[in-house]
Amino acid sequence: MDLKQHIEIMLPEIEKELQKQVARLDEERTRPFHEMLTYHMGWTGEGAGKDATGKRIRPLMVLLSASSSGADWQLALPAAAAVELVHNFSLVHDDVQDNSDKRRGRPTVWTKWGVPMAINVGDALFVISNQAMMNLAKTYPADIVLRAASILHDACLDLTRGQFLDMSYEERTDLTIEDYFPMVAGKTSALLSACTHIGALLGKANEVGQENYRKFGHHLGLAFQIQDDILGVWGDEILTGKSAASDLVEGKNSLPILYGIGKKGLFAKRWEQGPIMINEVKDVAKLLEDEGARNYAEEMAAQETHKALEYLRAANPHGAAGESILELANVLLNRKQ
Amino acid sequence: MDLKQHIEIMLPEIEKELQKQVARLDEERTRPFHEMLTYHMGWTGEGAGKDATGKRIRPLMVLLSASSSGADWQLALPAAAAVELVHNFSLVHDDVQDNSDKRRGRPTVWTKWGVPMAINVGDALFVISNQAMMNLAKTYPADIVLRAASILHDACLDLTRGQFLDMSYEERTDLTIEDYFPMVAGKTSALLSACTHIGALLGKANEVGQENYRKFGHHLGLAFQIQDDILGVWGDEILTGKSAASDLVEGKNSLPILYGIGKKGLFAKRWEQGPIMINEVKDVAKLLEDEGARNYAEEMAAQETHKALEYLRAANPHGAAGESILELANVLLNRKQ
Repeated sequence: MDLKQHIEIMLPEIEKELQKQVARLDEERTRPFHEMLTYHMGWTGEGAGKDATGKRIRPLMVLLSASSSGADWQLALPAAAAVELVHNFSLVHDDVQDNSDKRRGRPTVWTKWGVPMAINVGDALFVISNQAMMNLAKTYPADIVLRAASILHDACLDLTRGQFLDMSYEERTDLTIEDYFPMVAGKTSALLSACTHIGALLGKANEVGQENYRKFGHHLGLAFQIQDDILGVWGDEILTGKSAASDLVEGKNSLPILYGIGKKGLFAKRWEQGPIMINEVKDVAKLLEDEGARNYAEEMAAQETHKALEYLRAANPHGAAGESILELANVLLNRKQ
Repeated sequence: MDLKQHIEIMLPEIEKELQKQVARLDEERTRPFHEMLTYHMGWTGEGAGKDATGKRIRPLMVLLSASSSGADWQLALPAAAAVELVHNFSLVHDDVQDNSDKRRGRPTVWTKWGVPMAINVGDALFVISNQAMMNLAKTYPADIVLRAASILHDACLDLTRGQFLDMSYEERTDLTIEDYFPMVAGKTSALLSACTHIGALLGKANEVGQENYRKFGHHLGLAFQIQDDILGVWGDEILTGKSAASDLVEGKNSLPILYGIGKKGLFAKRWEQGPIMINEVKDVAKLLEDEGARNYAEEMAAQETHKALEYLRAANPHGAAGESILELANVLLNRKQ
């Protein structure tokens, strides 16, 4: 069984588990509320379907980590649902915080139902994530359930830390690449490392094994984010003008941009002068590349990728799931947009 | 030891536990974030102090329920902190949702730091609540901790249900008193019944005892809310003009107002015609009283009070804490603003 087959088998089970969890709100009085959640999850409303659900990378990571540690992955489904619900809670709140009107090509929850409702939808997804995790108690001993819940809680606090840093950076002009990693550790790595950690825990890996899985997820998250940062400046769609979502235009504090600021050269000068316009994107991207930002970011991505794969090797993932988790990591790390 | 003495001993311990939990964010990079939480909790910033913290009714209820069930209340401190953190998470988000600029006489978090930060502050309080509850595992068996966490999670989902109903009612003009109780059950009763339920669980009350404590909290919450609704229309401060926060002016769907709407008399006619002005408050309150809304609400408050006290009696709370919990219930039920 390869990754494609694993995904084909696991994805429908993940969706079923998620739908079961969210159905807690599927009651007469709260039906419109339930619909806000099912809309965001990609199951209902305009544009519902595969493109709207997202790729469910995080729950797949939980299940593949559990399976490659030696457990029946079906037992880990409540935990897989829990992490995906946390991810989606944070997306709903992020969209409000960033004033984003589109998510996966569809209007965001707050644009459809307003900010107050969207805050409540995010809160509900978070609560249901907690409830989903408790469902592990049907098949796991209570102390393991507590441990899994605690790992996810810690990752959630990291999410709020990362979100705080990200938002507070918006007003600052004195940032350096030192400021990058604490933010990204919270925003991207924390949840991914919780996925692989919880998966290994539920797969009954020993302490050392769990730690290897955890670090694999952590570095995978960092590598993935840096890749994303590189694409955000030099991605094909951005340079050809197909997408206007250049990190340069949006003023994101991404790794190459922070590197360029730290260089205090021509890029930094241009950056200080205010927002970069769409018609400048190509030239400024070239300038940033000439100052070494792309090389630096690619080098960092390669380092993190190397670490991720080292820890995965050390974790010694078993069987077909072990091959699939490596395959999934490679897909994430080499992804082209 | 009476209620006053219990409060004198317990309150400092509650604050200490809360501060310890929130200190998770007290790190160099996230210090300004930590300060947003400590400001909201009433410990720092302008107007910090007793008036700013709130009365900590909910954690007191947890501790008195635990103690009157026969446990050392100190053991229940992490759970007491957890419910208070949930309460405060919901206040921070409520203030954004209701566009309220003052809370306990001080500027709200969103007015000081903006909506995006306030959403994140609420999220962090919620996460820390989860983490606080996990700390019970130091002294309680894992299955009890899971049970306590699950009770709180269920109450949190009820909070989001109540919040949804409250917000969706704003646009509706066809409401009846039937719509009142599901909303209030979520917004006020759910958390209070979780407090007494969790307290009894941690006090090792048996199933029947836990259920009596839970129902005591539930009906206490309803009675308390209805009292609050009565004061919101006919409170001294409102009728004498000392406070402009009349529920009539704010258009709240409170119990007496819903009763008046259902009567389809002169009050309902006036209500339909749009917002009630401050200079009308006295006359409209009189009209609503003449149509029987005050009597009805007082009767309902009396019924809920009676039920609450019946369940408390059935719970048979022990010792000095048992007397204090009854005293606290009476304070809440007979309170004058």
